[in-house]
Amino acid sequence: MAVSSMRLGEIAALLGGRVQGDEGTEIHGIAPIQDARPGQIAFISNQRYVGHLRTTGASAVLVSDAVARLGAPPGTALLVLDDPYMGFARLLRHWTDPGPRVVTGVSAKAHVEPSARLGADVNVHPFAYVGAGAVVGDRVDLHPGAYVGAGAEVGDDTILGPNAVVHHGCRVGARCFVYAGAVVGSDGFGFAPDLRQGLHVKIPQVGIAVLEDDVELGANSTIDRAVFGETRIGRGTKVDNLVQVGHNASIGRGCFVVAQAGISGTARVGNGVTIAGQAGIAGHIAVGDGAVVGAQAGVHGEVEAGGRVLGSPALDGALAKRAMAVFPRLPELRARLRQVERRLQALETGQPPPG
Amino acid sequence: MAVSSMRLGEIAALLGGRVQGDEGTEIHGIAPIQDARPGQIAFISNQRYVGHLRTTGASAVLVSDAVARLGAPPGTALLVLDDPYMGFARLLRHWTDPGPRVVTGVSAKAHVEPSARLGADVNVHPFAYVGAGAVVGDRVDLHPGAYVGAGAEVGDDTILGPNAVVHHGCRVGARCFVYAGAVVGSDGFGFAPDLRQGLHVKIPQVGIAVLEDDVELGANSTIDRAVFGETRIGRGTKVDNLVQVGHNASIGRGCFVVAQAGISGTARVGNGVTIAGQAGIAGHIAVGDGAVVGAQAGVHGEVEAGGRVLGSPALDGALAKRAMAVFPRLPELRARLRQVERRLQALETGQPPPG
Amino acid sequence: MAVSSMRLGEIAALLGGRVQGDEGTEIHGIAPIQDARPGQIAFISNQRYVGHLRTTGASAVLVSDAVARLGAPPGTALLVLDDPYMGFARLLRHWTDPGPRVVTGVSAKAHVEPSARLGADVNVHPFAYVGAGAVVGDRVDLHPGAYVGAGAEVGDDTILGPNAVVHHGCRVGARCFVYAGAVVGSDGFGFAPDLRQGLHVKIPQVGIAVLEDDVELGANSTIDRAVFGETRIGRGTKVDNLVQVGHNASIGRGCFVVAQAGISGTARVGNGVTIAGQAGIAGHIAVGDGAVVGAQAGVHGEVEAGGRVLGSPALDGALAKRAMAVFPRLPELRARLRQVERRLQALETGQPPPG
Repeated sequence: MAVSSMRLGEIAALLGGRVQGDEGTEIHGIAPIQDARPGQIAFISNQRYVGHLRTTGASAVLVSDAVARLGAPPGTALLVLDDPYMGFARLLRHWTDPGPRVVTGVSAKAHVEPSARLGADVNVHPFAYVGAGAVVGDRVDLHPGAYVGAGAEVGDDTILGPNAVVHHGCRVGARCFVYAGAVVGSDGFGFAPDLRQGLHVKIPQVGIAVLEDDVELGANSTIDRAVFGETRIGRGTKVDNLVQVGHNASIGRGCFVVAQAGISGTARVGNGVTIAGQAGIAGHIAVGDGAVVGAQAGVHGEVEAGGRVLGSPALDGALAKRAMAVFPRLPELRARLRQVERRLQALETGQPPPG
Repeated sequence: MAVSSMRLGEIAALLGGRVQGDEGTEIHGIAPIQDARPGQIAFISNQRYVGHLRTTGASAVLVSDAVARLGAPPGTALLVLDDPYMGFARLLRHWTDPGPRVVTGVSAKAHVEPSARLGADVNVHPFAYVGAGAVVGDRVDLHPGAYVGAGAEVGDDTILGPNAVVHHGCRVGARCFVYAGAVVGSDGFGFAPDLRQGLHVKIPQVGIAVLEDDVELGANSTIDRAVFGETRIGRGTKVDNLVQVGHNASIGRGCFVVAQAGISGTARVGNGVTIAGQAGIAGHIAVGDGAVVGAQAGVHGEVEAGGRVLGSPALDGALAKRAMAVFPRLPELRARLRQVERRLQALETGQPPPG
Repeated sequence: MAVSSMRLGEIAALLGGRVQGDEGTEIHGIAPIQDARPGQIAFISNQRYVGHLRTTGASAVLVSDAVARLGAPPGTALLVLDDPYMGFARLLRHWTDPGPRVVTGVSAKAHVEPSARLGADVNVHPFAYVGAGAVVGDRVDLHPGAYVGAGAEVGDDTILGPNAVVHHGCRVGARCFVYAGAVVGSDGFGFAPDLRQGLHVKIPQVGIAVLEDDVELGANSTIDRAVFGETRIGRGTKVDNLVQVGHNASIGRGCFVVAQAGISGTARVGNGVTIAGQAGIAGHIAVGDGAVVGAQAGVHGEVEAGGRVLGSPALDGALAKRAMAVFPRLPELRARLRQVERRLQALETGQPPPG
């Protein structure tokens, strides 16, 4: 049930923070710091927005200790938290809780094969399809056009968005969200090339794809099934839209894979890794735990645990930044080199240095 | 109703141009300049194709004044226009006008929730779904598998292609085309990271996504809904296939966003901007009116109005081109630098310069 | 019918190779070299995995002559083939042959327009749609949510995955696989720009898209229809997931186009070309037969037959590799240049060289 009003002291009790200002401040909404009006609470988690603290209309702001020390204008209370963004997340979830899930059951316009097994309180909406022998957990939502292939498994409390696809034999854990149009377990891209005749021979893709519990898979992303064995996305990993994960790749737990990134076949990505937007990871390589791969980076070699890489081909991040800073000055460096050569020539030949 | 024949004078009257040659030339088709045969009209809008004017089989060609001055071979009439490409567009639209739209109504195999409101003369094809409280305008086409979520709004004369998705509460304007598999209003990628346990906390995405009037959204593109407020695509903006637009991003009016480009969350793109294929715009930054972002560029800082940027990370276009021209010569520059050092060493020590 | 056991001699007879070791070795499965256990056969086609030959648990391994000369440990037989990967593909196909296709016919929950023509033994699954005048060949599978537009043609033995779309008038050949969510024949991205008012005029896209025989088109990939004429994917070409092919592009026979690559409109790609992941090919250019375009490359000019290109903008591969190797050393080169300038200055002025 969505909340309509809380006092700041109650919010502090919910989130565990310390109030600097009036605990009785009445809050009836949450808003971005630059848009917030009196009666609303905002948050600052990004240094970029600290300046807004002076001018915000918010009645209260979630801040870190460091920001709190800057002080707040009169009439703006602060709630000081270790992690204001986490506090914002928890408060917003509390505030926007949609309340009890509505059970609509299996639509007469859906299709469920007789041998499929459905858990309790599932919603199978019109035009959703559940194949033979599939196993669908309790409280699962299959939105219109969602597809669960033969023998596939979908865990409790998982949601398949409109037109999301889980292919035969694949497994999606509990509390996952597979967004609209995402595809789990399409055939991997495996062919034995016949370059003479161009009639490449397809390698049967007889493995599966597995999403562990608490995974989100963004709209129109694609996770290929394995040749043998599994392609696997670890627990709690969040995958954005339009991401490609190739056959037999494995991604660890708690990773972020941002939109339009591509993870090639048989790549091994550790736990807690961030792969930024449009980055690419080549096949057969390893990215260590906690590594961060920059946007549009092209990773062709191992990335060590905790490593930060940038660029295409990817380099150590600090090194890449220094080299990228010199890159625009290449024409100048070339001109200076040419000038140096002319001055040297003059010295060597005893001529005066050029103009 | 498609046209089968026109005289060149009639075409000039339609498009407003000046004929150089025989106004009575009979035209019964439109074709690319390199393929056109007698009886067909072609166009030249790209300098690359000017050479074909000598050899084309076309009976007439739409050209600019500059191209007209080059003259045409005997038997090829010219129609001189300010904007030959626009003329081509208008002529082709005239020529291929499919005639009155056929109204088929709501298929018995579609699903429309009773509380949804449908306008006049809508077509809801088999397996299309309209959720509770959705509002669908007049003359809207919902193709097979299209999905309109609860409370969403779709404006007059808009088309949702097969399996296109407009999520709950989102708004699509009039005369829009949302192509097959495109997704409007999927959840944004927002999590409060819990890097210790990897159990990131999802930020509820309680805003919406809005396409203003006359927007086209290409196949399998994804526009995320906002955290709060709106993700917005401005009037007349054309978005190609497989494009990602993150939560709370705004794109102005009359932009072109080419295939596989990615616009991160909270980016602000002005009016009349062109973002070329596979380019990426980082979050929280602004791209000014009329700017052009090159293919595969990676934009991490502000782009001023009218700016042109290239490269990853993106630089001013002229600067980037000069630096990119030097890049292939880096090995040579390094060798020359080494040579310079040896010659200097020789001078400093009084040795003869190295061979 | 899937095979459960073969002797190595039988496998040699099937694949045409030479056994080094015991022909009577009983094989009851296929596995990757690093995972294989006794009773299984593995393969080595990638130099990276040669080391595993010492330690594999496999009872037999498919190898090239060069690898065979390294010898195998006792108890591991070798089957020597010209192309071990092709041998693996053929053996795996033999082994995993799913047996006769099951014919389920046209589901009562599908929709086939009366004027469509269906071949023999087609499966039209629930929620699949076949438009007016479409022609569907023999033994075609249209999975749930698949869409065949009016007048489109789908050849014999072709499969459209769940929610795959073939738009009106387009043609898909025989033995093709269009994977889940892929879109054939969406409108190309063609507009006559009206930059003053931002109300760009759409160019009607009146051509079609054609997939020749034996093409695979990966999940959520998009192939635009032509303005006029055809967008064409040649026989036996394999296209991975999330690939974009623009209007009027042509791709030859037997190519590989890897995930998230983008081929712009009117590009002409020859036969046997490999375009690696996330690469982009600009419009109106040609890529010659047998060329290889590296991952994330950005190709803006012609690529000659057999050429290898890397980088963005793309360069000849060998040149690009040498320049990429120097790139990280740019800060060092700049420092050395500065040092050279100071030393020169000292020489020119008669001062001692700087410390």
